[in-house]
Amino acid sequence: MTMVNVQAQADEEDAPEAAEQAAAEAVPVSFQTAPEQYRHWRIDIDGPVATLTMAVQEDGGLVSGYALKLNSYDLGVDIELYDAVQRLRFEHPEVRAVVITGGLDKVFCAGANIRMLASSSHSWKVNFCKFTNETRNGIEDATANSGQTYLAAVNGTASGGGYELALACEQILLVDDGSSAVSLPELPLLGVLPGTGGLTRIVDKRRVRRDLADVFATLPEGVRGDTAARWRLIDESVPRNSFAHRVRECAEAAAATSSRPIDGAGIDLPPLQRQDAADEIRYQYVRAVLDRDEGTVAITVTGPGDTSPSIEGLHEQGAAYWTLAMTRELDDLILHLRTNELELGTWLLRTEGDAEQVLAHDRVLIDNPGDWLANEVLHYLKRTLKRLDVTSRSMIALIEPGSCFAGSLLELALAADRSYMLAGVFEDEDAAASPAALTAGELNLGALPMGNGLSRLGTRFLDDDAAVQQVRDRVGKPIQADDALDLGLVTFGPDDLDWEDEVRLAVEERASFSPDALTGLEANYRFAGPETIETKIFGRLTAWQNWIFNRPNASGTDGALRRFGTGQRATFDRKRV
Amino acid sequence: MTMVNVQAQADEEDAPEAAEQAAAEAVPVSFQTAPEQYRHWRIDIDGPVATLTMAVQEDGGLVSGYALKLNSYDLGVDIELYDAVQRLRFEHPEVRAVVITGGLDKVFCAGANIRMLASSSHSWKVNFCKFTNETRNGIEDATANSGQTYLAAVNGTASGGGYELALACEQILLVDDGSSAVSLPELPLLGVLPGTGGLTRIVDKRRVRRDLADVFATLPEGVRGDTAARWRLIDESVPRNSFAHRVRECAEAAAATSSRPIDGAGIDLPPLQRQDAADEIRYQYVRAVLDRDEGTVAITVTGPGDTSPSIEGLHEQGAAYWTLAMTRELDDLILHLRTNELELGTWLLRTEGDAEQVLAHDRVLIDNPGDWLANEVLHYLKRTLKRLDVTSRSMIALIEPGSCFAGSLLELALAADRSYMLAGVFEDEDAAASPAALTAGELNLGALPMGNGLSRLGTRFLDDDAAVQQVRDRVGKPIQADDALDLGLVTFGPDDLDWEDEVRLAVEERASFSPDALTGLEANYRFAGPETIETKIFGRLTAWQNWIFNRPNASGTDGALRRFGTGQRATFDRKRV
Repeated sequence: MTMVNVQAQADEEDAPEAAEQAAAEAVPVSFQTAPEQYRHWRIDIDGPVATLTMAVQEDGGLVSGYALKLNSYDLGVDIELYDAVQRLRFEHPEVRAVVITGGLDKVFCAGANIRMLASSSHSWKVNFCKFTNETRNGIEDATANSGQTYLAAVNGTASGGGYELALACEQILLVDDGSSAVSLPELPLLGVLPGTGGLTRIVDKRRVRRDLADVFATLPEGVRGDTAARWRLIDESVPRNSFAHRVRECAEAAAATSSRPIDGAGIDLPPLQRQDAADEIRYQYVRAVLDRDEGTVAITVTGPGDTSPSIEGLHEQGAAYWTLAMTRELDDLILHLRTNELELGTWLLRTEGDAEQVLAHDRVLIDNPGDWLANEVLHYLKRTLKRLDVTSRSMIALIEPGSCFAGSLLELALAADRSYMLAGVFEDEDAAASPAALTAGELNLGALPMGNGLSRLGTRFLDDDAAVQQVRDRVGKPIQADDALDLGLVTFGPDDLDWEDEVRLAVEERASFSPDALTGLEANYRFAGPETIETKIFGRLTAWQNWIFNRPNASGTDGALRRFGTGQRATFDRKRV
Repeated sequence: MTMVNVQAQADEEDAPEAAEQAAAEAVPVSFQTAPEQYRHWRIDIDGPVATLTMAVQEDGGLVSGYALKLNSYDLGVDIELYDAVQRLRFEHPEVRAVVITGGLDKVFCAGANIRMLASSSHSWKVNFCKFTNETRNGIEDATANSGQTYLAAVNGTASGGGYELALACEQILLVDDGSSAVSLPELPLLGVLPGTGGLTRIVDKRRVRRDLADVFATLPEGVRGDTAARWRLIDESVPRNSFAHRVRECAEAAAATSSRPIDGAGIDLPPLQRQDAADEIRYQYVRAVLDRDEGTVAITVTGPGDTSPSIEGLHEQGAAYWTLAMTRELDDLILHLRTNELELGTWLLRTEGDAEQVLAHDRVLIDNPGDWLANEVLHYLKRTLKRLDVTSRSMIALIEPGSCFAGSLLELALAADRSYMLAGVFEDEDAAASPAALTAGELNLGALPMGNGLSRLGTRFLDDDAAVQQVRDRVGKPIQADDALDLGLVTFGPDDLDWEDEVRLAVEERASFSPDALTGLEANYRFAGPETIETKIFGRLTAWQNWIFNRPNASGTDGALRRFGTGQRATFDRKRV
């Protein structure tokens, strides 16, 4: 029974106070791992079908103070899952279907560890949920765009985040053993939401009728068997003795529809080379300078050298190929800063290098749409840029001489909340330099959509096709500040005399505003236009969950989340707000 | 200057403590008013153009403890605006354009009163914002569906909620006098969001580029003149000496496109007859029984008598006509309960009467799409039902023998979070009664859309056209419990033996859950499918604003909202979440 599972997660011996202390000690978190280091997941590959088996080590929590019972998870468990999903895409072109299943007896996954949630700071909870959401979106992205269809083989009870993980899969098979169920017990037991996509996917993806969805979310024991199938909570209820066979059958059927190559050679994803100093993080193509007084991170992405990029070169160089190497570094940096550097509220985005080379590398991706690896690199770049869109930091792009905001890297400027582009050159520095320029490329025209399904240009010029066309007409041609202003591609174009003051004032001003109000402002402005399951999860569902996380009814001393497992009932302020 | 205006709103003599005390004394709030009672607004009608002039009485606050300086508003001011918008639609068919303007010197509207916000409880702030949002949506609805186009004649500075009011209008004209500006100073000055639609409408309705929108929201002094027009914040910047003329010109141009009748006779909206007892509220067609122990309100809507409804009858009876009378009563009850009865968390929705008569009244609206009054009644019913969708109360429909959940009233069951329909009759009560039945009608097929643009049936059966078609095939035919269950129109169909227990348990269970988690759950489940500006405002923007309202950075003793006007700067926790 789910309720039993969830309740058994909590351990009354763990004093919440002690755990809270521990949670504060969690940083810095590393997002780098590899299968040989996994403690909670196992990857087994059998022909075109991979199986990801979750068997969480109880004492393997990222932070001390809680036990990861019954396949409950914390950020550390999810970091491994993220790594596995990435590696399956890049290292295993032969894998065409992925089965997620549980490795413990009677339980698929009991969701996020409650003791961990109860003892975590607000920012930790929010960051944890954001990352798990991105990973689940990545699972859906693999199914939709990578020819790797995910199936949930729910071989025991899936509760809360456990069921939400299954919801991210294309198909859900639930074992029919008289006890295994799917459930969302957050409302009745914890006073919070199924906030990792659950409330959105259940009605928007699986089309569960809203009144049945309502009933479902009030049943801590969940729903099983044929009822679960009839309500569309699962796709099939399968007897235990035929479960493995049926899972394999479905996985092979999904694999048969994939366009991934049978005989492609995967590429390795070796550990990133990252040098950390007190105020600097340096990778090969990305570096970040941390200014704790200013509250900023100055991020610089370096373009590729003149490497005559080609599709053969991509396969030969693999993870060393510029686009992929840069993307992996940027991905890691975003995750690091988000989780470990909460008070650095403004990110300054710069590039340096040769715009032509960036565009040449982009073209390899565009010109080889049928190549599985080019496809993977493109979608990975897309996912990494999407992380920026949901990052709760102000982003300011600084476009200077010597920069290479072109094509893929122009997306950084378009993802920023505002941009400053130098009109001309820095006279004192290098009066003979070429003036700052940016260049639109094919990749800006739709291949790297935001969560709302539009390109960043399309969102910027919402329904203004003429404005987009003007940019389209300039593809491949460097655009200097005056033109960029006219085209609406940058916000400000100060000259050498004004540059330093304008940028400094903007940064100082940003630091003076309420960090919370900035987060809300940016979350609303960044997603104009249509909404998708993804934007609903990050915009609407997350915002409500964050509100609830902040309310005494959940997180107060007498709140449901804090009281859970103590044997005491929560005390609620009954006012409906 | 906006900043000066906003700062001048605050009066250092008002101690926040005293104001907080006062805010708690605000209930019960009455939503009934009429032009002769207005303290803050004036309606002037000149041919096809009405002018709504805002001249807020400083000492006219709904609650004591703050002064409504510089055309700042509180709930009381907005109740008058709502009343005016309603009356213009029903009482003035000849009005085809409505100009909103300011009646004070140099100021259009300074937005929500900050002292009021700072001293209000969380629930008060949330309810206040919800109602003002609904009123602004109503202004847009009048423009879109009523042939009454709203124009904002911004004859002085419009800051914060003042500019958001202008954003609800179809056109914004700003006087060019060297000082009047539009602004959203919430972020820099108060640490909260422009949460009454501002952040959504600026990018989604007016298509202001997101980076310019970002800059705009950081400028407490706002933007004026040609820059405001170029950024699309306004439609026109107009010199003071030609302002009145240009406003009239634009209003007449808008009026010329209206299909409202030149010579129609308006109908009066007399005061509602409402009887309040300790635990009961009774109107002619709507009554509510309040159970404070259970935390419920039992709402019963009575159907029309056999009045041979007709379009002539509608015009003759006016506000006494069943559909309009019932809608006005329901509207008032929803607003009353939301604002004044926060702890009654579950609303039980019942109907009683003759389904055929409900459908006959519906048909008058359907059969006369060109009749301005039928059109108004239909859209008013739509808006009132929409209020249910954004009401933070659990709603359970109870479908019993003698009920009339048909057509317009079936929407109540479809708006509910779940429904119980008796299979058969209550044997002990009336064994010979007709079994409980519900009836779909034409009005359920799209004429009463939710905020997401879909009918409630369409949202319920998202993308499942076959399920909708099955209901469509049964239009006009009573459907009993077994069929209703099969068709997916109701959640449960207990029989006489189980009815009482099942309903009681559902109600008790609802009362045991976290009120906040229920609010979040329902807000997510109720809006599956597409999103619109309206759902973005109520879903995404509101959720972020509520989160921010709850954060110490805004509402803590040292937060920006509480510190505003005290001369002390806010102290922020700099962590970005």
